Amino acid sequence: MKLENARGTRDFLPEEKIRREQVVSVLKNAFELFGYSPLETPALERFDVLSSKYTGGSEILKETFRLKDQGKRDLGMRYDLTVPLSRVIGQNPNIKLPFKRYQIEKVWRDGPVSLGRYREFLQADIDIVGVKSMSADAEMVEIAQKVFENLRMNVTIKVNSRKILNAIIDYAEIDSEKKDEVIIAVDKMDKVGIEGVEKELEETLKIPEDKIKKIISIISMKGKNEQKIVALKLKLKGKDAEEGLNEIEELLNYADFENVIFDVSLARGLSYYTGTIFEVVPNKGPIKSSVAGGGRYDKMISLLLDQKTEYPAVGISFGVDRLLDAVPALENKKTVAKIFIIPIQAYKESLDIARRLRSAGIKCDIDLQGKGPSRNLNYANSLGFEYVLFIGETEIKQNKFKLKNMKSGEEKLLFVNDIIDELKE
Amino acid sequence: MKLENARGTRDFLPEEKIRREQVVSVLKNAFELFGYSPLETPALERFDVLSSKYTGGSEILKETFRLKDQGKRDLGMRYDLTVPLSRVIGQNPNIKLPFKRYQIEKVWRDGPVSLGRYREFLQADIDIVGVKSMSADAEMVEIAQKVFENLRMNVTIKVNSRKILNAIIDYAEIDSEKKDEVIIAVDKMDKVGIEGVEKELEETLKIPEDKIKKIISIISMKGKNEQKIVALKLKLKGKDAEEGLNEIEELLNYADFENVIFDVSLARGLSYYTGTIFEVVPNKGPIKSSVAGGGRYDKMISLLLDQKTEYPAVGISFGVDRLLDAVPALENKKTVAKIFIIPIQAYKESLDIARRLRSAGIKCDIDLQGKGPSRNLNYANSLGFEYVLFIGETEIKQNKFKLKNMKSGEEKLLFVNDIIDELKE
Repeated sequence: MKLENARGTRDFLPEEKIRREQVVSVLKNAFELFGYSPLETPALERFDVLSSKYTGGSEILKETFRLKDQGKRDLGMRYDLTVPLSRVIGQNPNIKLPFKRYQIEKVWRDGPVSLGRYREFLQADIDIVGVKSMSADAEMVEIAQKVFENLRMNVTIKVNSRKILNAIIDYAEIDSEKKDEVIIAVDKMDKVGIEGVEKELEETLKIPEDKIKKIISIISMKGKNEQKIVALKLKLKGKDAEEGLNEIEELLNYADFENVIFDVSLARGLSYYTGTIFEVVPNKGPIKSSVAGGGRYDKMISLLLDQKTEYPAVGISFGVDRLLDAVPALENKKTVAKIFIIPIQAYKESLDIARRLRSAGIKCDIDLQGKGPSRNLNYANSLGFEYVLFIGETEIKQNKFKLKNMKSGEEKLLFVNDIIDELKE
Repeated sequence: MKLENARGTRDFLPEEKIRREQVVSVLKNAFELFGYSPLETPALERFDVLSSKYTGGSEILKETFRLKDQGKRDLGMRYDLTVPLSRVIGQNPNIKLPFKRYQIEKVWRDGPVSLGRYREFLQADIDIVGVKSMSADAEMVEIAQKVFENLRMNVTIKVNSRKILNAIIDYAEIDSEKKDEVIIAVDKMDKVGIEGVEKELEETLKIPEDKIKKIISIISMKGKNEQKIVALKLKLKGKDAEEGLNEIEELLNYADFENVIFDVSLARGLSYYTGTIFEVVPNKGPIKSSVAGGGRYDKMISLLLDQKTEYPAVGISFGVDRLLDAVPALENKKTVAKIFIIPIQAYKESLDIARRLRSAGIKCDIDLQGKGPSRNLNYANSLGFEYVLFIGETEIKQNKFKLKNMKSGEEKLLFVNDIIDELKE
């Protein structure tokens, strides 16, 4: 037996797990503040559900972990939380719409492993199903805003619309079979710059010069969001242009935050998006790529369910693992407990005091092995306890106990009630 | 595509998920109050780790979901949280002992599906690694006590020791090859009664009458815990008897709760237990079988890791799914939010008020679709919101808004600050 993790998976020991829980709790609180309720779906799904042509596409399917149960049924481990949401909508026709749910669960992808890319990772998704209005899209942006504010992360929230990208393709008169490749090339602007995009359009995709010029004139547009919208309204024509620009205008009217940028080069990969798309990128720190992203997918659910009923939907997904790599200063603790009790030949009496502290809601650990005070102090120190409490014969007699603050070194002789007050502060 | 869940798996829609989260939070709070810190390990494990002969045994292995990654590596989905804990201990030689961790995560077993038996289920485990003293075993019992008190469930916590079971086998002079079968027969006493056990020992296992009499004389013993210990100390002799009885005595000295019962017929299935074993059974309600169970396994970790270092360990596992079937009255809500805002032609102003409520920490939803008041009231009603707030032109002019209590039907015209006060109460 080889004592190691399955490739691309990780353990989270208490110190990391406590950090992780802090981030999850920030996400959860923000989602709930906006009235999203939790949903849980299984890790295992029927493979035919995961592989429906209206879901993630063939790329994602190659990375799906497949297995069979004892009854030879084809199963797979979910690779996202959107397909399960769609299935839940289809199986529960009585769900009240709009359905606002969040889901914070693991997903699995059997892909290449590298720094920041794992095979088992945690996603935190919010989606609204049943609302066409841009107020829903704006709410996604506002929640992202709230999440990163609470994580004290400085980010840019980029927004764009698939409809605007379509209008740009029309404006530049790009052949429809080259449309996707051109959009993917444009999406790289952040990484390769205007020149890089130009080069790819010219050399790799063999787009004629006049068409490239048109594309570049649009995506190199500078200025404030409103200025860009005004300028684009003059250049881009047709239904897609009109709808897309009006929608972005409406979204920016509701989500009126300084760090929300209308970025016409933003494309995002997934083909199921039908309208607004958004992406959150840290302004500084080790992570340069997006830590959250999403968009509107008005057709995917009804196509997947093969139903005529329309399910307009918009969502955003936060990558918890990448977020954790990007989040700065969070407390580092190896224990959730605040105080460690050191009984000196007085376990039973110490247990009684532990019970009183716990009844008062104080997280409290106690030496179970009858070790001496100095070994116990070392242990408490290495785990980062804030306080230790010594309980010996003398203390029990006077009913006062020695509370030591591990940071300052200060020691106080206190009644149990005063210890509770001190620790609750 | 068949629109259904993989066999033996379930979705938890918000109403159920909220209940589920309440139970998980009771468990988590209790674990943390006693100083246990969280650990997270992956769902996917190397199959050679899961199938080591010192782990769950061949029965459990038959029910392990197996799969291969793209690199043809043999993997499996974890069937418990004890094997991953042991692996983590082995891989992290610098972990400070005692290591007190909790882990609340899913496990998978590809077994028969029936009421209360699923293929994907949630387990909540606590374990202490590195402590031999009975204070640790007693802490397990005390935490179980706390958990069920907080869940307002009336339970019996049964304790016994593998050492005592061994001593009973010796006392009745049972052949060693029949030992396990006899223990399994004895374990059924709760279900089949003394006569049932007698019958199985006689008819199925062909145990001679005098030996059966000896066994029955022990397991039919009545009386208080202390009385049973005294009586057994007179009958059972040898190292196992002495150690086992002293340990139970010590455990009961620390875990001195009324509903803790020393039950010599308790055996529990897993062969890796080496000392105390415990099981929690509801006193009333639909679930008659155990909702939590555990014991001491002093040898398993070092055998699994093939190390000479000893890792004494004791743990208890709570079956969250079964617990949820057993827990009585918990609130039923389809939303986590407390208030639903109904804008009347005033979305932007309503959004500002939603922001103020959210900043005050009030979970708040808002109509995003511009529906009329009566359709919005129906929606708020069907999701179980406690309050709705109407925001229209008149209200905005006077800066006071109509707050409706959905239970009492009472309506009040209030400033936003007063609404916050009312909702925070």
